[in-house]
Order: sequence, then C-alpha cells, then structure tokens
Amino acid sequence: MNSVEVCFSPQLFDLFGRKDSIVVVVDVFRATSAMVTAFQHGAKSFIPVSTIEEARELGNQGFLAGGERNGEVVEGFEFGNSPFSYMSAKIKDREIALTTTNGTRAINIASEGANTVLIGSFLNLQALANHLTLQKKNVIIFCAGWKNRFNMEDSLFAGALTNLLLNTGKFHSDCDSANASSLVYRTGRKNLMSFLKSCSHRKRLGHLNLEKDVEYCLQRDITNVIPVLKDGKLVLLR
Amino acid sequence: MNSVEVCFSPQLFDLFGRKDSIVVVVDVFRATSAMVTAFQHGAKSFIPVSTIEEARELGNQGFLAGGERNGEVVEGFEFGNSPFSYMSAKIKDREIALTTTNGTRAINIASEGANTVLIGSFLNLQALANHLTLQKKNVIIFCAGWKNRFNMEDSLFAGALTNLLLNTGKFHSDCDSANASSLVYRTGRKNLMSFLKSCSHRKRLGHLNLEKDVEYCLQRDITNVIPVLKDGKLVLLR
Repeated sequence: MNSVEVCFSPQLFDLFGRKDSIVVVVDVFRATSAMVTAFQHGAKSFIPVSTIEEARELGNQGFLAGGERNGEVVEGFEFGNSPFSYMSAKIKDREIALTTTNGTRAINIASEGANTVLIGSFLNLQALANHLTLQKKNVIIFCAGWKNRFNMEDSLFAGALTNLLLNTGKFHSDCDSANASSLVYRTGRKNLMSFLKSCSHRKRLGHLNLEKDVEYCLQRDITNVIPVLKDGKLVLLR
Repeated sequence: MNSVEVCFSPQLFDLFGRKDSIVVVVDVFRATSAMVTAFQHGAKSFIPVSTIEEARELGNQGFLAGGERNGEVVEGFEFGNSPFSYMSAKIKDREIALTTTNGTRAINIASEGANTVLIGSFLNLQALANHLTLQKKNVIIFCAGWKNRFNMEDSLFAGALTNLLLNTGKFHSDCDSANASSLVYRTGRKNLMSFLKSCSHRKRLGHLNLEKDVEYCLQRDITNVIPVLKDGKLVLLR
C-alpha cells in the first residue's frame, strides 16, 4: 500500500522529504484551476516563475506572460489567474510564463526534490485520482495556501483527493493532515460553495468580485487533462 | 470584537506576528496536560528548556528535572511528560526544568515576541475560555504539533477553545485554521477517544502504551489552574 499525505503550507513542505513520491500541487483559487483550464484549451506549456520580473522578461522573449499578486492581474500583464482568461483561441499551442501569489511558488518549491510534480484542481480531480492509483507511488498533496497559511479551499481539495485514493483500497494514511482534510471535505462536499461561504475567510477574495471564478473552480471533473512538470515547464501528461 | 486564530505548527508561528495578543500553547499529548496537572498539585514553576543538557544542568542546580524525547522519559531523568508523574507530594512548591519533543519548544518560540503566553489543555479548557473572554485581546491558539507537523489532538483542543470563544459573541474568526479546527472538533466532540482512534495517527504514541495517559489528557475541565509565562518561567496565573 502506498501512503497519502497532505501538506498545508509551502512553509511546511521540507517536512515531507520523500524522493520518489508524486506531489500534487493545488491552488484552487485560482492558479492551478487556471492552468488546468489552459491545457484543456490547448496551451502548450506553463513556465511557473517566482517573480514579476522573470515573467516580464519571458514576455519580452515571445512567451505569453501572466502575473497575479493578491488576486489581481499585475499591471502590464495580459493574463492573471482567472480561468476565464485561459479559454480563448489565443492561448492555443502557446507557452505561458506565469507568476502568482501562492501557486507558482508552491510549484517551484515542490520541484526542488526528486519527486514527480502534478497539478491538481477540482476540475481534473477524478482524472488525477485514476492516474495516481495506477502509479504505485506515495502521494503528497501540497496545498499552496494563502501566503504560507492554511486555507480552506485547498484543504477541501486535499480531502476530496484523499478520500478518492483511500477508497481504492490501495492507499493508507498515517497523516493527521490528510485525515483532517478528509473530514472537512466530508462535511462540506454537498455544497462546496455554501460551505466555503459559511466557514472560510472569503474576504481574501471577496472584495475582488470573483464569484464567477470561484463557482467555476469548484466544478468537479470537467476535464481529464493533467499538467506535469518536466524540466521546469508544465506540460500535458500523456 | 477580538480575533481568534489557530497556528497548526511551530514552523508557521512567524506568520502570526502580533505583539499584543494572548498565545495559548497546547501539546495535549502530553506536555501541557502534564504542566497543568503539576500546578494543580502545587508545583511552583516550570522552566521550559529546549535541550536535554539545559534540563540536566538545572537538575544539578537543585531543580526537579524532566526530559522527554519521542514519548519516552530520557535516561537519567526522574520526570517525563506523563501527567501521572506530576501528582505526587514530591512536586509541591518545587521548580521543575522540563524539555520535551514538541511542547517546550513551542513555548519557547511563543515567548520570543511581546505576547502573553498561557498554557492550555482539555483539563483547564473552560477556565481558559473564561479568562480569555475577560481580557479583550486577540487570541492565538498555538498547536505544538508533532515534530512541526499538524496533529489531530492539538487541533481538536484548538477547535474546542475556538468554539467556546466564538460562542461568547466577543470574538470573531477570519482564520481558516480556526474554522477548520472548530469543524473537526464538532465532528469528534461526543467521544474524543474513539474519534482519535478512528482518524489520528495514533501509532506515534500507541507503541508506548499510553492509553491511560491519553484518557487522562482528554478529560475536560477538571481544574481551573492556568499557567502563565513570566520572565522565562511558567507560574500560576492568579
């Protein structure tokens, strides 16, 4: 049996030091949901970068460039992390350099070890679970959180994926974070939107009028695409 | 209204940087439960130290000395972190130097800022809530966790205290960790013992035959004592 573990913050990831695991990075609102959406609509690759300057530089080199900080598109960038901006024909076959407040940083931290890094969201949840079940590797679900703090939406995703994996009978959990996430998800699963409204710090995003994005990102299983990190680029897993 | 927040790991505490808050440190199994028990039985003070050497040195200076690592009493020490060892007449009016795997480290980290540091456990839960409600300060519940990782028992305590504080109407929570803890507690509250057996990584402690200690530490409200940190020493709050 393989293990499933959940890391609640980039600042805790060094405690999950396995070398031969699969790390699923999630930033539900909205970086990883946007990436999955972009691949679904034909994007060729994402380069996750940590700074605005790197994204701008790659933009000058002919990449599409995206930049988000504190939920808003950074001035001078065409793309932020709204999934809706990654649905147009413009992004087809293009390479996109992206920096976001939480998600791209988590991807870069996850990439430092010798693990396989995949991108998760509710949009490709079941596809991920199916893929992971076939790999016979330990799984670490890595929540991007909010500025290194625990957040409810990424933990809900972690709980949903933990449940799917445990239900296959091929995984076990000795990880209290995984078990707590699973409990929280089982409490909220019937209506994720109203659950988050009742118990999450929605002010983080609320003032940005992101209701439409939030609803979009909470949809389950609308695509089978799974982005995987290869040589510093996210590409479609085939 | 004052805020209540929950920190899941010593490694995240720097994100909770308030200067004028009350920090409640908890290590349910078993350091803070043992400390509360000791004060209930007449101990004069605890000096939380980080290393075995410091505890030994203070032992040589005439303090009672306690040392625990990975759940076991360190060789050469009379006390570990079992509450039952702090019930004897021996500890009355004595000063105790203690080092433990998680709890004393968390206390020392909490003491670095300009916050007030109190010691929490299920044993003095309601007394703590009553005291905190009168202080008109923001509250940070600081879970010692297990080797910097999230653990279920400390989060259950955090959820129980969060609930009591929110129910007074004098606190609010914008903190997803506090809200998740509160949910987990509400799921498990009816029988904490069987809840922990079903979903916590009990192997951490299970092999040490700590059933009796675990049962003791999960008792609610058996005392009103509240330890407070003053000049590097825990003393009884009066």
